[in-house]
Amino acid sequence: MDVALAAALGGPRGANPLVGAVVLSPGGEQLAVGYHRGAGTAHAEADAILEARRQGVDLAGTTMVVTLEPCNHVGRTGPCAQAIIEAGISKVIYAVDDPHDPAAGGARTLQAAGVDVESGLAADQALNLNREWFDAVATKRPFVTLHIAQTLDSRIAAVDGTSQWISSPESLADNHGLRGLIDAILVGTGTVLIDDPRLTARASDGSLAERQPLRAVMGLRDVPEDAAVRGTDGLFVHLKTRDPAEALSQLFHQGVRHVMVEGGSSILSTFLAAGLVDELIVYLAPTLLGSGTPALNDLGITTLADAQHWAWDEAGGGAVQNLGNDLRLHLRSMRSAATTPAASTTKNSIPRSEAAEYVTGGH
Amino acid sequence: MDVALAAALGGPRGANPLVGAVVLSPGGEQLAVGYHRGAGTAHAEADAILEARRQGVDLAGTTMVVTLEPCNHVGRTGPCAQAIIEAGISKVIYAVDDPHDPAAGGARTLQAAGVDVESGLAADQALNLNREWFDAVATKRPFVTLHIAQTLDSRIAAVDGTSQWISSPESLADNHGLRGLIDAILVGTGTVLIDDPRLTARASDGSLAERQPLRAVMGLRDVPEDAAVRGTDGLFVHLKTRDPAEALSQLFHQGVRHVMVEGGSSILSTFLAAGLVDELIVYLAPTLLGSGTPALNDLGITTLADAQHWAWDEAGGGAVQNLGNDLRLHLRSMRSAATTPAASTTKNSIPRSEAAEYVTGGH
Repeated sequence: MDVALAAALGGPRGANPLVGAVVLSPGGEQLAVGYHRGAGTAHAEADAILEARRQGVDLAGTTMVVTLEPCNHVGRTGPCAQAIIEAGISKVIYAVDDPHDPAAGGARTLQAAGVDVESGLAADQALNLNREWFDAVATKRPFVTLHIAQTLDSRIAAVDGTSQWISSPESLADNHGLRGLIDAILVGTGTVLIDDPRLTARASDGSLAERQPLRAVMGLRDVPEDAAVRGTDGLFVHLKTRDPAEALSQLFHQGVRHVMVEGGSSILSTFLAAGLVDELIVYLAPTLLGSGTPALNDLGITTLADAQHWAWDEAGGGAVQNLGNDLRLHLRSMRSAATTPAASTTKNSIPRSEAAEYVTGGH
Repeated sequence: MDVALAAALGGPRGANPLVGAVVLSPGGEQLAVGYHRGAGTAHAEADAILEARRQGVDLAGTTMVVTLEPCNHVGRTGPCAQAIIEAGISKVIYAVDDPHDPAAGGARTLQAAGVDVESGLAADQALNLNREWFDAVATKRPFVTLHIAQTLDSRIAAVDGTSQWISSPESLADNHGLRGLIDAILVGTGTVLIDDPRLTARASDGSLAERQPLRAVMGLRDVPEDAAVRGTDGLFVHLKTRDPAEALSQLFHQGVRHVMVEGGSSILSTFLAAGLVDELIVYLAPTLLGSGTPALNDLGITTLADAQHWAWDEAGGGAVQNLGNDLRLHLRSMRSAATTPAASTTKNSIPRSEAAEYVTGGH
């Protein structure tokens, strides 16, 4: 299961959970490893089966160890339970149940077909692996990624409003790659009025990516008729609310399972203050402005003890990556997962109290 | 020379330049590599000679390739020219002349002793390696390191002034290690009045390091008689000026060759705005405050095109290091080195114009 858990980190966070799977021979030898590479791609189980077949492995009588209950539904990819049965795998060991109603029931399907099924192995780690995703599924809201492109001193625009481009071309390309993977991109009306962004996913030559996110603008002000964000493809929605939970609810009902919030400061701060951010991606340019628009403007925090703590996230490429001259920082929420079904077994304490143990005291 | 240049990066920036040295056999085989590990430790040449002797290498008739002219003076360590002569090394190839008056003349000493001397190999790279140091020496001021301990959103204190501890214990320990290496630490009177710091170099158990920096406080306000920074060891000075160049001049005349500026925001910003910072060390905690004291408050920059660009610095441990939960970011100045003797041969252009080439335009 450790191998499966580690493999899962190869995938990106988002609408789908991180899942890893390992195929073992009857003697316990590791035959193949698979993981899920994000929405629309093969699930970890199918990926592992494919990898085993590539290597010419006979799957009959093998055991699959997987971090999440195999799915039972036909989505953009086939049901994994069926694939496992057809492959002749005789035993499945999984960590935690799939909480997603349409997908649940994979274990029963497997058992009905005569597959030996065990669950609960390393359940704590598997829950922690996808803490934010379980939270989003349980509360029926999209998974939320916050995107910030800032200077070292956390400015997202200069005094005169110029902000193009704080980030390196590589960071911009990375951001456009993410846009092609998510279901919706969200900005505030202020950003539309100031920057008139298109918010499409584009290749570095300017061509549109095949898959485009829904372009959502949040706020009470009108979106001008000629705003670029409206486009002509129908993938535009104006969410007439200032409440982030309400905005997420509206998006969820439109089928959005992963939204990336791109700005500006007020919108970023609103989502953070509400504890509704699952993942943080910060493009950090090695530049200083000293003044201008700060990335964040108020989280309702007045003392250091109440600061929001984030955890470095190694999933989907690593916690710290070089993108041209920039650093790409990847962090995940440390807020309580109290809304998840198995919250009592997960660890969400903030391990910063040790800072107080630095015995020298004073500066 | 490439090997010597790469080895030089092993050392820390500061009062002394980064220097690397390689000993080659008469046949051109690499026998030993050395580098300078910072003020008070063996110079690169002595380090390479020591390494060769450790390996039992006969130095007679060998060639030394070194990134800077061997020194001729007796400082805290012996003169390298003499060590080279005594080792029987028959040829020295160095990149650039030592501009430091008391040290200069090593090449002549070597030649007078019959050592074959060549200079100018990879001079551009060697000048660039120590661009800031050459600048400091030429303008007779200390080398300036700026220290910032901040959150992801670049806050150094919360709204209520609490700032202990934004950084991890590992970052604090790293900072105290630096304090033990530099000649002086500089803060503003505001920091003294608000935080009453001791500014001593301490081990994690609170004990004082053997070597302590001069504690300099800059500003026109009085330093209280009972301020911790005054201490009882005489290593305290109040620089009654708001002008960073004047403060550096006063420190230089007191023998300070490396100063670390620790804050607060106004002092940090003043030094950055004046272009008087050589090196930037940022401890970045994975936390958010949203409000509070920003690390910087004004650099006189109003538009993005005028942003200060910094270069990632691999010297002394790397550009990005993990320190507990924090990242330690290490950057060096990209300001013009026009005051250095060989500025025309160095490259200081800001390679950010390519950002404009990202052809998609708009967000």
